[in-house]
Amino acid sequence: MAKFTTLYQHGTLALLVPGLLKGTLTMGDLLKHGDTGIGTGEGLDGELIILDGKPYQVNSKGNVNVVPNSFNMPFANIHFANYSPLAELEDVSQDDLEKQVLSLMHANNTFFSIKITGSFTNVKTRAVKKSVPPFKTLAETAKNQSIFTRDKVEGTLISYFSPELFDGAAVAGFHNHFLSDDRKFGGHLLDFHLDKGDVSYQLFDTLEQHLPVNDDDYMKHDFSADNIKDDIHNAEG
Amino acid sequence: MAKFTTLYQHGTLALLVPGLLKGTLTMGDLLKHGDTGIGTGEGLDGELIILDGKPYQVNSKGNVNVVPNSFNMPFANIHFANYSPLAELEDVSQDDLEKQVLSLMHANNTFFSIKITGSFTNVKTRAVKKSVPPFKTLAETAKNQSIFTRDKVEGTLISYFSPELFDGAAVAGFHNHFLSDDRKFGGHLLDFHLDKGDVSYQLFDTLEQHLPVNDDDYMKHDFSADNIKDDIHNAEG
Repeated sequence: MAKFTTLYQHGTLALLVPGLLKGTLTMGDLLKHGDTGIGTGEGLDGELIILDGKPYQVNSKGNVNVVPNSFNMPFANIHFANYSPLAELEDVSQDDLEKQVLSLMHANNTFFSIKITGSFTNVKTRAVKKSVPPFKTLAETAKNQSIFTRDKVEGTLISYFSPELFDGAAVAGFHNHFLSDDRKFGGHLLDFHLDKGDVSYQLFDTLEQHLPVNDDDYMKHDFSADNIKDDIHNAEG
Repeated sequence: MAKFTTLYQHGTLALLVPGLLKGTLTMGDLLKHGDTGIGTGEGLDGELIILDGKPYQVNSKGNVNVVPNSFNMPFANIHFANYSPLAELEDVSQDDLEKQVLSLMHANNTFFSIKITGSFTNVKTRAVKKSVPPFKTLAETAKNQSIFTRDKVEGTLISYFSPELFDGAAVAGFHNHFLSDDRKFGGHLLDFHLDKGDVSYQLFDTLEQHLPVNDDDYMKHDFSADNIKDDIHNAEG
């Protein structure tokens, strides 16, 4: 398994849907699998973005913290960064950007990451407020979220693209998190416009999908009644 | 990634549906990821079962061959065997056996392998005949299959169980291949009765999903029109 062509994923988005929000992997263990990533904490405790091996959390107050190795997560993606330049883009909407990336990548059937550094406008992010047991469903929990906006901000976007076949395990399509250069603003991206930025990509041939088999709640859950795909795209799309 | 808790998969069952049957991994490369497994050759060239590092192919004539390291495959599962005893069973049908395994394992939400050695009756297997380019769909190609039966035979069954969430990437539920102790009979199991056998299991917490990103036909294919799940279960169920 080549180091730079593997995307590691702990948990699945599907397990969040019925509210299996217990942290089942520590940040210390996650960081063994990469230096760049995204995720969320136990109880949907904020939005994570990992850059250069440093794990930042944007919480529901909008504060950006570096979390300790003991921080626990139900879901995360991580990989060892080795991006290649894809394009320099100016004045594009999120939709147009994603279309351009797809047409340049020709990689709808595999996993890849996109990193964008530059100047963004009309940025809208969210961060969910941590809930405590007994956890409610993803849809209920995600209602307790804060929305943050910036008219103009310099920063880094980390995105993972997942193929349609793996919808449920991941979010099919793009899943975007953001952190500003001043480390004061970020979260799960809901909308943005790219004023000017460098777009780079990293293609994966392997998904290393790790499941929380030591969590009884996960192992015993009957997913057949969960409305997985709709709920994921409502909460994460 | 722990050696004995990882299931390696090359390709997906979904890619077979529209007829992406080109071999995209050699047996030599597959065997780096395990010593026990199942799969099929380029053009659905027979049914593979790997035992103790030895890759056997049952072809559409019913012959059992050991294939060379250069043998090419569009799809395969492999892992390093480290099975633990689960049960000694007598006189059970395939359905009852699978139900008993599920109730003993409590592991519907992860991947695991089952190995059964013993005496089987009313065994029915199939092996598909190799097709050549331009490949037809899985449904069309699988019509050229031979059915083999044995009233009573000693042998080994290797099964992989995959969770419902990964249906399409794998076959949700059990996917069973068989090889007789005399190495003269085997294939993809369609039906069997277990006269008496030792059932052992190996639980995985990680799926290492490898995709054929260097195959242009795969990377360019639009899967949205394919009837993936129905066709997989008609051909592989």
